[in-house]
Amino acid sequence: MDSAAGTNEKVGFNSWCPFLISDSIQKLKEFAQKIKKIGKDDPRRVFHSLKVGLALTLISIFYYINPLFHGLGTSTMWAVLTVVVVMEYTVGGTLSKGLNRAFATLLAGALGLGAHHLAALAGDKGEPILLGVFVFMLAAMATFSRFVPEIKARYDYGVTIFILTFSLVAVSSYRVEELIKLAHQRLSTVAIGVATCLCTSMFVFPVWAGEDLHMLVAANLDKLACFLEGMGVEYFGEKMESGSLEGKSFLQSYKTVLNSKATEDSLANFARWEPGHGRFGFRHPWNQYLKIGAVTRTCACSIEALNAYISTLQQSHQTTTDLEFKQKVQAACAEMSKETGKALVELATSIREMKWSSTAGKHLAMATEAACRVKALVPTENSTLLEVLVSATTASLLTEVVRCTNPIIASVEELSRLAEFKWPEHGRKAGAVKPIASAESPPQVVIVIEK
Amino acid sequence: MDSAAGTNEKVGFNSWCPFLISDSIQKLKEFAQKIKKIGKDDPRRVFHSLKVGLALTLISIFYYINPLFHGLGTSTMWAVLTVVVVMEYTVGGTLSKGLNRAFATLLAGALGLGAHHLAALAGDKGEPILLGVFVFMLAAMATFSRFVPEIKARYDYGVTIFILTFSLVAVSSYRVEELIKLAHQRLSTVAIGVATCLCTSMFVFPVWAGEDLHMLVAANLDKLACFLEGMGVEYFGEKMESGSLEGKSFLQSYKTVLNSKATEDSLANFARWEPGHGRFGFRHPWNQYLKIGAVTRTCACSIEALNAYISTLQQSHQTTTDLEFKQKVQAACAEMSKETGKALVELATSIREMKWSSTAGKHLAMATEAACRVKALVPTENSTLLEVLVSATTASLLTEVVRCTNPIIASVEELSRLAEFKWPEHGRKAGAVKPIASAESPPQVVIVIEK
Repeated sequence: MDSAAGTNEKVGFNSWCPFLISDSIQKLKEFAQKIKKIGKDDPRRVFHSLKVGLALTLISIFYYINPLFHGLGTSTMWAVLTVVVVMEYTVGGTLSKGLNRAFATLLAGALGLGAHHLAALAGDKGEPILLGVFVFMLAAMATFSRFVPEIKARYDYGVTIFILTFSLVAVSSYRVEELIKLAHQRLSTVAIGVATCLCTSMFVFPVWAGEDLHMLVAANLDKLACFLEGMGVEYFGEKMESGSLEGKSFLQSYKTVLNSKATEDSLANFARWEPGHGRFGFRHPWNQYLKIGAVTRTCACSIEALNAYISTLQQSHQTTTDLEFKQKVQAACAEMSKETGKALVELATSIREMKWSSTAGKHLAMATEAACRVKALVPTENSTLLEVLVSATTASLLTEVVRCTNPIIASVEELSRLAEFKWPEHGRKAGAVKPIASAESPPQVVIVIEK
Repeated sequence: MDSAAGTNEKVGFNSWCPFLISDSIQKLKEFAQKIKKIGKDDPRRVFHSLKVGLALTLISIFYYINPLFHGLGTSTMWAVLTVVVVMEYTVGGTLSKGLNRAFATLLAGALGLGAHHLAALAGDKGEPILLGVFVFMLAAMATFSRFVPEIKARYDYGVTIFILTFSLVAVSSYRVEELIKLAHQRLSTVAIGVATCLCTSMFVFPVWAGEDLHMLVAANLDKLACFLEGMGVEYFGEKMESGSLEGKSFLQSYKTVLNSKATEDSLANFARWEPGHGRFGFRHPWNQYLKIGAVTRTCACSIEALNAYISTLQQSHQTTTDLEFKQKVQAACAEMSKETGKALVELATSIREMKWSSTAGKHLAMATEAACRVKALVPTENSTLLEVLVSATTASLLTEVVRCTNPIIASVEELSRLAEFKWPEHGRKAGAVKPIASAESPPQVVIVIEK
């Protein structure tokens, strides 16, 4: 495409038109491929879309079948509204929203009726004022309750619906005479909507949040294992330092684990609403998955530190002596890496098949043994060397922290230029902070230093 | 409370009653204190709650003032509904939801009218069928579009409202004769609702998502600095190893940085909708904050690795020799830690005051110098020792990864018990994997090993 644009550049407007069209076609094609990929990555998404269409069409039947329509009046639109708003991707999401909506409507409807009766006692003039005060107070209090973390996590949607229904019932009561009929209609249409959603969601290709969480936690363990096993072969293995690790896919996959908390929390929250299904009982310990997720992320952090250190090492061109000590450490590292990887794969399989196996412990015991072997390489009587090693390791880790601060300075400096921060008025000259990794490599970060 | 319960235990039902009441009172008191704390932590939450109440009361006026009510009919409830659903904590959130709602209603209303005209051509019998097909197709397509990440991030709410309005207009058209009037009513009430929300949100104690993001990014840098400066004084400083670091608050504060991605993403997303305000222009580079956030989290990960290593060291009781080498490394570490901390504080201040200062670079240069000093402690001609140090550091980092895998095994094992995974049928005996930190400390994780 680009070369075509280059040749057409000076030919005039007429030759631009087909180019613009073909460009649009190209973009449309790309978009279509993106859409196709999204569907292919998880075909349940296509089914979900069809399910929403199905539920909405089912609800529309209430408009077509006359007797039902006459019974419920124009309130039927509440049913349509409920289906659109309540229908979520996972069963747990739909259940959580549906139950929140149904109970909040019930509670707020009853309170609204109470408020109406109370306000009626104040006479024709006092009624609207009193209703206004009620609405203000309840809306303010309910909104504030959403800041309580426990309520926010589980009942956020219910509180919204509570405020909504109370306001509608309380405010309508001033106009609409048949208040009880209205409340009753609203409740039954919401119930019909929620029931439709639940049936479609649970009985037509259901997507269970619990199962997704179960699989996600196992997949995250696999990603860490993938890094460690890759390292064991490619870096610590016999091929070591034969080539750069850059561009290897196994180096990247674990990174998504670091930011998995939000997804896990939301899946666990939905999973708690789900009834027992397949291999998961109603009181399945979903919280434990969050705990596994937390320790997995801690491990991913350690891996990140290791990866960062190794990348830095690879960039610096060190003289390599074929040291016996080094080879031994290398071999032990290869074993630690591979065995830990195997242990993690074992754990992931154990979760996936819901079958405990102690093999993971055995693999980790072997990794631990290899770690002890490294320690033993330094003769215990020579406590001086051991202390040197410990201090050096601490210093290396701290050096890594210092190195990580470089990009922070660079990105804040970029912000200061983009957002037009104030700059010191006296002149400035460009200096360079050398990266720590090696003296030979070119400076990576340029920091401006005042004259 | 507990001791009171103990003495009352055998006295019978009558003495239980006052206990139950005082227990409830105690719980209520605790809850009230929690609520109070939430309000005190961020008083803007209280203002927000009052603002929602205010906006709802303002909208209710439409019911009280008769001429307006007669003009818009029962659709006024759409205005109430809009206020409840659109009003968000931040201006950006309200704007994003409000604009999404307004434009989606407009677009879907127009499409719904078109669908109605098209379906009318099919005759009395074909019309409901055709409308049903339209609703099914549009709902399915729109729902699928929500899986596209870009649409999900910015227009998720708009798509929901689009499906909702289209279904309502298309389905209602079969019954309600005055379709155009309905669409017009709905649009004007939604516009009134959105306008009320925007005015209350922007002009009464506004909470800007952009400013929150700005402050959050600076606060996260401060948290990392807090750890490093604390380490510089308490661990690497002269007091070193005099006492355990456990329970020190500076060791914990950086941990929240690790999980800050979701909050930052959502704030940045809302900030993009906000008009210029205070020190922030309309096209303020919000994306750059996300970049700073990402490198800050990488640095937090390094800090986590350092912290984990130091904690492990502290648990193992090493023999301490007052080595000259060690003391020198120690001093350099103290400088690295303090100077990096200062650099981060400087960056945070620079962001907060929107005033670039090169002091951060100077501090980091000093930290880098200290890091080089550590390297120089190992004589360059003695490349063997250098290589030993590098291999040992890699091994230490990897050992840390192995150590992190221990809690993963323990938590998966707990899951396997809680969720009643299958266990191998032949007997099992308890074995113990020793933690790596030291041979003396008791085993931390018990792993069951088959016979």
